[in-house]
Amino acid sequence: MAKPHTKLSVDPSILAGITREPFPRSRKVYLEGPRVRVPLREVTLSPTRDADGRVTHNEPVRLYDTSGPFTDPAVALELRRGLPVVRAWTAERAELERLAESGSAYTKARLADPRLAALRLHVDRAPLRAKRGHTASQLHFARRGEITPEMEFVALRENHRLQSARAQHPGEAFGASTPNEITPEFVRDEVARGRAIIPANVNHPELEPMIIGRNFLVKVNANLGNSAVTSSIEEEVEKMVWAIRWGADTVMDLSTGPNIHETREWILRNCPVPVGTVPLYQALEKVGGEAEALTWELYRDTLVEQAEQGVDYFTVHAGLRLAHVPLTATRLTGIVSRGGSVMARWCLAHRRESFLYTHFDELCEIMKAHDVSFSLGDGLRPGSVADANDAAQFAELETLGELTKRAWAHDVQTMVEGPGHVPMHLIRENMTRQLSACGEAPFYTLGPLTTDIAPGYDHITSGIGAAMIGWFGTAMLCYVTPKEHLGLPDREDVRVGVVTYKLAAHAADLAKGHPGAQARDDALSKARFEFRWEDQFNLSLDPTRARAFHDATLPAEGAKSAHFCSMCGPKFCSMHLTGEVRALSDELPTADAR
Amino acid sequence: MAKPHTKLSVDPSILAGITREPFPRSRKVYLEGPRVRVPLREVTLSPTRDADGRVTHNEPVRLYDTSGPFTDPAVALELRRGLPVVRAWTAERAELERLAESGSAYTKARLADPRLAALRLHVDRAPLRAKRGHTASQLHFARRGEITPEMEFVALRENHRLQSARAQHPGEAFGASTPNEITPEFVRDEVARGRAIIPANVNHPELEPMIIGRNFLVKVNANLGNSAVTSSIEEEVEKMVWAIRWGADTVMDLSTGPNIHETREWILRNCPVPVGTVPLYQALEKVGGEAEALTWELYRDTLVEQAEQGVDYFTVHAGLRLAHVPLTATRLTGIVSRGGSVMARWCLAHRRESFLYTHFDELCEIMKAHDVSFSLGDGLRPGSVADANDAAQFAELETLGELTKRAWAHDVQTMVEGPGHVPMHLIRENMTRQLSACGEAPFYTLGPLTTDIAPGYDHITSGIGAAMIGWFGTAMLCYVTPKEHLGLPDREDVRVGVVTYKLAAHAADLAKGHPGAQARDDALSKARFEFRWEDQFNLSLDPTRARAFHDATLPAEGAKSAHFCSMCGPKFCSMHLTGEVRALSDELPTADAR
Repeated sequence: MAKPHTKLSVDPSILAGITREPFPRSRKVYLEGPRVRVPLREVTLSPTRDADGRVTHNEPVRLYDTSGPFTDPAVALELRRGLPVVRAWTAERAELERLAESGSAYTKARLADPRLAALRLHVDRAPLRAKRGHTASQLHFARRGEITPEMEFVALRENHRLQSARAQHPGEAFGASTPNEITPEFVRDEVARGRAIIPANVNHPELEPMIIGRNFLVKVNANLGNSAVTSSIEEEVEKMVWAIRWGADTVMDLSTGPNIHETREWILRNCPVPVGTVPLYQALEKVGGEAEALTWELYRDTLVEQAEQGVDYFTVHAGLRLAHVPLTATRLTGIVSRGGSVMARWCLAHRRESFLYTHFDELCEIMKAHDVSFSLGDGLRPGSVADANDAAQFAELETLGELTKRAWAHDVQTMVEGPGHVPMHLIRENMTRQLSACGEAPFYTLGPLTTDIAPGYDHITSGIGAAMIGWFGTAMLCYVTPKEHLGLPDREDVRVGVVTYKLAAHAADLAKGHPGAQARDDALSKARFEFRWEDQFNLSLDPTRARAFHDATLPAEGAKSAHFCSMCGPKFCSMHLTGEVRALSDELPTADAR
Repeated sequence: MAKPHTKLSVDPSILAGITREPFPRSRKVYLEGPRVRVPLREVTLSPTRDADGRVTHNEPVRLYDTSGPFTDPAVALELRRGLPVVRAWTAERAELERLAESGSAYTKARLADPRLAALRLHVDRAPLRAKRGHTASQLHFARRGEITPEMEFVALRENHRLQSARAQHPGEAFGASTPNEITPEFVRDEVARGRAIIPANVNHPELEPMIIGRNFLVKVNANLGNSAVTSSIEEEVEKMVWAIRWGADTVMDLSTGPNIHETREWILRNCPVPVGTVPLYQALEKVGGEAEALTWELYRDTLVEQAEQGVDYFTVHAGLRLAHVPLTATRLTGIVSRGGSVMARWCLAHRRESFLYTHFDELCEIMKAHDVSFSLGDGLRPGSVADANDAAQFAELETLGELTKRAWAHDVQTMVEGPGHVPMHLIRENMTRQLSACGEAPFYTLGPLTTDIAPGYDHITSGIGAAMIGWFGTAMLCYVTPKEHLGLPDREDVRVGVVTYKLAAHAADLAKGHPGAQARDDALSKARFEFRWEDQFNLSLDPTRARAFHDATLPAEGAKSAHFCSMCGPKFCSMHLTGEVRALSDELPTADAR
């Protein structure tokens, strides 16, 4: 077991490890709205050259871009000062006030500790919080009919290519209904209904807002720091930048260890996507890992600590109640959620209802004051195919539905966590029950893993389930890396995990018939058919790997303009032959063969 | 581009490159039937040690085993002499006769060429063929009520663990109906109906018979030699052994190049699983790659050549008719099947109906004389999401249905090829149309790939589709490696491709509720929950990778008996906490929380 990092400094050359290079032939472009500026990635394509030497221009393709300013060479970055502020408007909100000092005892103690000086960023901003009697949440604003800059931002971001899209397959959306144009008003309405959330803590001004809901693009979360061990602050920041480079729409910081407060600060100040946490993990650490020693007061202080830092959503395992625990006794694999087992242990040790459940309204007060969104945790998710869809899992889901409505009564934005290990034919039931129990609040699922027998390949066993549940209506998919069940993901695992989930999310968008989703497939397939190799690489989810795999067989530069590929060679090339077939068949009338 | 191999010798140390090591803690066991001996892999497990130190025995787990004698250290192998004969009974069949000489002019020329002496095996067996007026196919025997040794073999092989299985989730089988016991009579009946095939050329006595049909375990095919280039005979044999080690149920030899006849001979004589080919590729090579120069006579000679060698199934693109070709003119990616584009070109160049279609009955005569099964090729499979389920694809499928019935009239075993690129919501239609057009003949699909945007990850884009179409009723899945669209698979790609498809096939078996399918998941999950790390590795589809991934984080030998893992560390371990929860909750009554 590697040692927790206890180093009390951050390497000044931290930026050196950060990948800032844009993707090949890609540049950052910005869509301008009345109050916002939305970044996209634009990929330039080569022209098409047909057999007769005619040259046709191919329009550049614009892609949704999660990578933030890191891939914009025009933006100068210094991590110790954090990213440039995007949401300057937040500080101007009449509902908010700047605090003179933190509301968290723990935060105050950390700030007072001179030994931590070298770990601190050079960002001097007191926390914002809603004034007494006010609410700062997007749900609150939406319900009172206000279109916030965040809503304007996500409308432009989600909408950018819908109009330009050519005809595509109509999808099967299972009740989701994405319009052909996503307007700010549509966004507001979806947020007001609770059917989508915009996780955007008022203390996270560096955030480029995004939306999670079944009528929007399916999103992907990547976990960072999911271990008691190993990495330094530098490594965690680098891993975050790496994850968003490949397309992570949110990251969860699951760091543990002595400097998690400061690690989180570095991540948040440099993170353009929403950051989620499980505050219970840090609370548990504060009591030396003894679940029984947890108290509401200590947990509450941790919530305030993290909310003031700018965490955008909290996983809270409030749905696991005392009476659910015995339902797990006959399971093959008991309780496998870390948060779930901690709370189960607390409930049993004290023979009392979970303090997360009994203090839920107080919890909501903190959430709404900072606009932290709930991710209601599924502490009883099945850890094996055998335990899928059992009484324990669905009893908790009912409670999550009850809590969703209680959170909504407080104007707190809420999503609900789900799956784990579920065979394919039982996936759909998870979605339909969640929609009905939780009033269409966004569903956020881990996988599901569709079989238990492939450790080392669980990004794939779960990518199958993720694509399916995304199609059925899940709004965000929590990635699984190849190391799941076995060890800690390294950089390569993070990349493979994120890309696997991006392709699963995209497969879901296609199947739902999300307007414009097929445009990227069509552009890439056209490039492939026309032997525009570079365009094929550059339009892919992972241009680096696509190019490397090609070059492993045909490394010569000339091969990338060759009208054949390594699979069949020049004489047998089916794509090549088809070009001739197409020319010849122009002479034949189109006819049905039957 | 690498050079085709023209080396006229085979390295005598060829066995050195072959992996013969059994999987860890695994041994080959044989089920004895009246006439057959069916190999299985038995994995020995460690005992369970609970918190109180009680030790409980865990029954060994028996697994379906495709790896042949290579993983049985008790069998001495010499590749130049081929594998030991399994199906000795074939030579005794009254319907068959041994030929004095080959019926193929090409074979005779190769045998007469003294330069090829060093490439020949030391196997001296004249080809078998049905006597005039007789039929040698399993379908023929099944229809007349005979249970062959092959049927007995596959019944034992498919059935071995059904009785021992504990309760599992009932599946959703979409009309498939696997009984709780697979008897030889059930196998016979499924073959007689055409709903399953046992690809088993009378000239492939080394074969360990297997069955392909929707009421049996979902199978996986791996392609070998899919290139005009690079590998030697040694490498191709090694790749075959490697593919079946990871679980390939059949292999397709797609080799091209000057010595493909001899390469095929080496593969067949050493291959315990069915071998499929696309005879068109070799025929095309014989005419220097000029599609227009192909003739029925030359193609026919190639069929005889390969049938006498023992190829178990032929992909024949007879469903692509002249009138279908213009239907592809408006496609985004035209015709992407190699065989399809060759035949389309031939049809257009000659303005004639495909010779495969017009000579179909003669084709059947050759198939039935050697019991070669048809794999009716889908030359018009979609090469992009945009082209999925279009008029061209489904027009060809109707013709494949017509040909299936014509093949059945000749007692020729037949399966039908399908998919390519298909978004998730259009997959099901492929299956339902195939079942109805082709009278439930087994479906054998490539993927489908559920999006086009992830070259480098197409084993995953297609693994998603493969799992789903397997669930819906596809009997065999043709693997896709990470190099698809980009380059040639190396050893690692073959392993990843096969394992990905094995997990997809297994996910399909679970979803169908295949009797006993969940037993392996349950055994692995129980091992995981009890921190029996070695058992978890050994029960997985890829024990080598599972162990390597674990050791990358916790290399110490002691960590493999530790009651925690690297993800959470000892204090936060949810599995560990659950053990305590279980003990504590025994005191509480089971109750529903609502």
